[in-house]
Amino acid sequence: MFLQDFLDLARAKGVLAQEEFEGLQYHRFSDDLRRYLRGTVVLGDMLVFGYPKIARILSLEGGIPRHIKGPFYVEEKADGYNVRVVKVEDRILALTRGGFVCPFTTDRLPDLGDFEAFFRDHPHMVIAGEVVGPGNPYNEAYPPGVEDVAFLAFDLFPVGSWRPLSPLARYAILEKYAIPQVRSFGQFSPTPEGLDGLKALLRSLNREGVEGVVIKPQGGRRRFKYVTPFINIFDIEFSSHLLAELPGEFFIQRVIRLALSMAELGLEGGEELGRRLGAAFLRGFGSAVEEFRARKKVTWTFFLRMRSRDRVALLLRHLNRASRHVRVSLVRLEREGDYWRVVLEKRFLRSTGFLASALGGSFYFD
Amino acid sequence: MFLQDFLDLARAKGVLAQEEFEGLQYHRFSDDLRRYLRGTVVLGDMLVFGYPKIARILSLEGGIPRHIKGPFYVEEKADGYNVRVVKVEDRILALTRGGFVCPFTTDRLPDLGDFEAFFRDHPHMVIAGEVVGPGNPYNEAYPPGVEDVAFLAFDLFPVGSWRPLSPLARYAILEKYAIPQVRSFGQFSPTPEGLDGLKALLRSLNREGVEGVVIKPQGGRRRFKYVTPFINIFDIEFSSHLLAELPGEFFIQRVIRLALSMAELGLEGGEELGRRLGAAFLRGFGSAVEEFRARKKVTWTFFLRMRSRDRVALLLRHLNRASRHVRVSLVRLEREGDYWRVVLEKRFLRSTGFLASALGGSFYFD
Repeated sequence: MFLQDFLDLARAKGVLAQEEFEGLQYHRFSDDLRRYLRGTVVLGDMLVFGYPKIARILSLEGGIPRHIKGPFYVEEKADGYNVRVVKVEDRILALTRGGFVCPFTTDRLPDLGDFEAFFRDHPHMVIAGEVVGPGNPYNEAYPPGVEDVAFLAFDLFPVGSWRPLSPLARYAILEKYAIPQVRSFGQFSPTPEGLDGLKALLRSLNREGVEGVVIKPQGGRRRFKYVTPFINIFDIEFSSHLLAELPGEFFIQRVIRLALSMAELGLEGGEELGRRLGAAFLRGFGSAVEEFRARKKVTWTFFLRMRSRDRVALLLRHLNRASRHVRVSLVRLEREGDYWRVVLEKRFLRSTGFLASALGGSFYFD
Repeated sequence: MFLQDFLDLARAKGVLAQEEFEGLQYHRFSDDLRRYLRGTVVLGDMLVFGYPKIARILSLEGGIPRHIKGPFYVEEKADGYNVRVVKVEDRILALTRGGFVCPFTTDRLPDLGDFEAFFRDHPHMVIAGEVVGPGNPYNEAYPPGVEDVAFLAFDLFPVGSWRPLSPLARYAILEKYAIPQVRSFGQFSPTPEGLDGLKALLRSLNREGVEGVVIKPQGGRRRFKYVTPFINIFDIEFSSHLLAELPGEFFIQRVIRLALSMAELGLEGGEELGRRLGAAFLRGFGSAVEEFRARKKVTWTFFLRMRSRDRVALLLRHLNRASRHVRVSLVRLEREGDYWRVVLEKRFLRSTGFLASALGGSFYFD
């Protein structure tokens, strides 16, 4: 299908949104259309496929022999947000999962890797990766050991294709450039020994505080993710200020994963695990209640650095479009060397409304 | 409206279900119809109103001054299941919240109070109460201090009316009969002193392991419930074998109530509270996983006593109609004195299916 016909079809189906970033017009799929996933982006004559969801398995022992027949690569699953980096004419842009140009990531790309050199050699490639670290505007939680933000590539694919390169091909290409990649733990096989090795790796990643692994079979397109036990406690702790905001399943699925992976990895939780899990639930929600009592709102503050002042404004607009339940405001903006130091406050409207209502004495039928 | 017209209307609206119990035909409202709530029952020419939901407040300080203008009675909220007891011709029957004749409760009524004497004097009254105790076929959790089962009355209303008698009127009538009532903690006023007294009561009930209180204003029809902190941990502990079965909100709402009521009652949880909460989540789910590994199913076993063997069969049929996600089977039935000892196993199909799928290696997109 020619690109124009394709856009016409998407528009007719109501899944095509027109967007603009610094004078560049582009289209974004706001929902799946056949194999074109939500987040698919059309920039001029370039089609950048939406990044697919990765299948989660809750059991290595059950899942690996069932789904994987040959050797597979195991890579670190980093805990951040997903972007696809592309070059369009002279600009290098970072696209969010939803298909927006991310003003923050795009602004900081020069700090995150030598994308210029890469795209000089490979102008028709897309680099998918995770942006991690405390200096990000999206996620409250971040992995240990990163200051500010970092980019970790985990996939390469050609513009106009949804087929990622094999891990080995990606390693070979990217290692020539100063673009960090997620850690690869090498090849494993779907044998009892391979499974034992994988479990040992996950026990070690669990101690490190790493989110988990992505399993990439050499043949077949489907990848699998499996997370470490403790990341679930960590996620609950960093999200429990939103106990009245996020769906209950968000938390309960994590308790389930925690219990299943502790058992599968042969880890004994004992009293200490219970204490940590309970504290994770209570601490964040308790601080939200305290904040509400003191300031009549539930918020989270983000501390970023950006190069362009204009893009700070674009980021604010972007964040305020992303959810009807979150309002983002600029708390502080000051020059520091070549950067702007940005302090953003996200106000969570549902949590704020819930606490206003509950503490104000509203009644509920449940 | 005449009763027949009313039934015709309900039938036309699709909310009328015809039922039968030991030869007695009756109708049950399977959903609300105007002010006739789900669980409303028509037995011959008797209309027994569905028991209304009670409004929950999450803050005494916010809720009491806002909703209550004069003195109010405070009664124990007992942790069991709700029945309405009525006399129809020569039979004394217990109706469930959903409007079924409960074969178990009806069978055991002679053990639970002197209903014969009451209905001899008050044939046109309905007694609403809670059935509590370990020997019940519905709830895994039960309050401390009860052996087998007990009935605790909390409301009286005339047949054909949805207006309960005032607490004082009920106390006066029921104390003449050997029919136990929920504890009444007497009258409170919506003043700062009244509120302090109520909080002190709730701290004491919390230590006892009581579920909470029902607040009944002298004027006005609306009642309010407020639960103690620890009952939430208790509920989570007794339900966490169903972590993959119940809605996530079931658990998360309880964590929220726990945190809010601890703060309102001025109780310091500290490390111990976290440990108990975390253990409550992990213990039940862990035992479900263990059971699944050993027996390929997730179950809960109920131990009852009943008088009539025929009603055991009716109870099984009733329980198997109540949910598509639970299958109940008779594990043992043996004579003991004047009773049948009944052992029932509830098999939870969703939890069983989830664990079969997850441990079998299925993948999920979330």
